[in-house]
Amino acid sequence: VLTAVALDGLPEIAPGDDLAPLIVEAAARTRGAGEFHDSDLLVIAHKAVSKSEGRIRRLGEVEPTPRAIELARRLDKDPRHVQVVLDESREIVRASRGVMICVTHHGFVCANAGVDASNASDPDTLITLPQQPDASARHIRARLKELTRATPAILITDSFGRAWRHGQVDVAIGCAGLSALEDWRGLPDAAGRTMRATWIAVADQLAGAADLARAKDGRQPVALVRGAERHITAADGPGAAPLLRPEAEDLFR
Amino acid sequence: VLTAVALDGLPEIAPGDDLAPLIVEAAARTRGAGEFHDSDLLVIAHKAVSKSEGRIRRLGEVEPTPRAIELARRLDKDPRHVQVVLDESREIVRASRGVMICVTHHGFVCANAGVDASNASDPDTLITLPQQPDASARHIRARLKELTRATPAILITDSFGRAWRHGQVDVAIGCAGLSALEDWRGLPDAAGRTMRATWIAVADQLAGAADLARAKDGRQPVALVRGAERHITAADGPGAAPLLRPEAEDLFR
Repeated sequence: VLTAVALDGLPEIAPGDDLAPLIVEAAARTRGAGEFHDSDLLVIAHKAVSKSEGRIRRLGEVEPTPRAIELARRLDKDPRHVQVVLDESREIVRASRGVMICVTHHGFVCANAGVDASNASDPDTLITLPQQPDASARHIRARLKELTRATPAILITDSFGRAWRHGQVDVAIGCAGLSALEDWRGLPDAAGRTMRATWIAVADQLAGAADLARAKDGRQPVALVRGAERHITAADGPGAAPLLRPEAEDLFR
Repeated sequence: VLTAVALDGLPEIAPGDDLAPLIVEAAARTRGAGEFHDSDLLVIAHKAVSKSEGRIRRLGEVEPTPRAIELARRLDKDPRHVQVVLDESREIVRASRGVMICVTHHGFVCANAGVDASNASDPDTLITLPQQPDASARHIRARLKELTRATPAILITDSFGRAWRHGQVDVAIGCAGLSALEDWRGLPDAAGRTMRATWIAVADQLAGAADLARAKDGRQPVALVRGAERHITAADGPGAAPLLRPEAEDLFR
C-alpha cells in the first residue's frame, strides 16, 4: 500500500533557512505523519529548496542582453524575465507561442528553464531551480539524519509540461536514497515471457503521487510517502541524473 | 491522504470476460480494499481491458504491406509487428533506433502505438490499445454500478516513455467519473498572487501513483486509489480526451 500525506504548516521559506528542522516540526504537527523511518520518502517541491538556497533573482537587478530583448519582443514577455531564463539555460529548443522550451544547465528539458514567478513572496522576484538538486537532496537527507533517528529518502520535484499532453505533472529533479529508475527489462513476466520495455521512472511517479496529496496554494511543499521502501536505498546513490535522456538518444531536440 | 492498493488475484483475462465482477471479487479478497465507495477510483492497466475486448492480433494472420516491410528492415523488427503498429497509427512521427513514435487513432503520441507483446498469454499475439478507452471506462463503471451499491471512478492506463527522460510512466488513456485536468490558472496562490501555469494532469499523476502500488509481473492490473475524491465526479464526463494536446499546439510533432 502506497500512502502520501502532505505535511502541515511549513512556514514561508527565506534564504538561509535550514529546511530539515522545519520539516521535522511540520511532521510532528501533521496527523498521520509522526516520526520518520528509514523507509520513508520526503517529497519536496523545489521552490522551498530554491528559496532556502537563495536561488532568487530580482527583476530590478537584471540587465537584459540584446538576445533577451529580441526574444522577449517575439514572445511578448518581460525582457528581464527572458534574460533570467537564458541565464538558466544551456540551449533553447523552441521559442514560440509565448513559451520557451529550454535545456537547463542540469540537462532538464522544460518550459522557461524552470524559472517561476508564482508563489514568490515578492512580485518582482523570480525563483530558479536549485543549482545541483541531487546535492540539495543529499544535504537535506544528511541534516535529517543528524536531527532524527532516521534517514528518510529525499525527492525534490518540479512541475513540467509534456510535449504531447495537456497539463503538468510533477517530476523528479533531484533525489538522495531513492532509485530513480526500476529496471525490469529482460526479466520474466507472470506468463514467463521476457518483459521487453519495462523500465519505470519510479521517481517521477512518486513525484506525481506526492503532488496529489498536496494543497495547491503553495503552503504544503512537503509530502511524506510511505510504501515505497522497495525503491529506497541506504546510500544516497546517483540521484535524479539517470532520468535524463542524453542528447545523443534524443529524437525530438 | 492519498492511498493506493493493488487488488489481489485477478485471473488471466480472456476475450469476452466481464471485468467488473472480477474486480469486485478481487477487491473482496484484498486486505485494505473492502467495499467500493463513490469516492473511490479504480485504476486499470489497459491490457486487462484490451484482452477482455478482444483487442488481440495474431502475427500469423498479419500480412505486412510493402511499407511495413521497408520500415521493419530499417528498424530491425518483425514486419508483421510493424504492420500492426501501422494499423493502430494515424501518423508515424519518428522511426529510428528501433523505435516507432506514433500518433494513434485516438491521438496519443507514444512508442509503437501502444502495441505490446509482453504479458500476452500466447507468444504469437500482440495486444493493442482499446479502440475507445473512454467508452471502455464508462462501460466498466456502469457495470460496477449494477453489481455494487457504489459508482467508483474508472481510469485506464498505459506506460508511455517521454521524449526527454529515461524510463516510462503510467498515463491515462481513458477514464469515467474523473476530471483528468485540474485548472488553477488565474486563481490566487497562498501569497495572494495569481498562479500562472498551474494546470495539473491529475489523471496522469493518479495513473503513476497506482502503478507504484502494483506488482510489475502483470498479475495486478487493478489498483484502488482513495483520497482523490476532489477529482471524482458523478457524471462520467469527457474522459481522458482533454489530455491530448491538439496538433495545432504541438511544438515537437
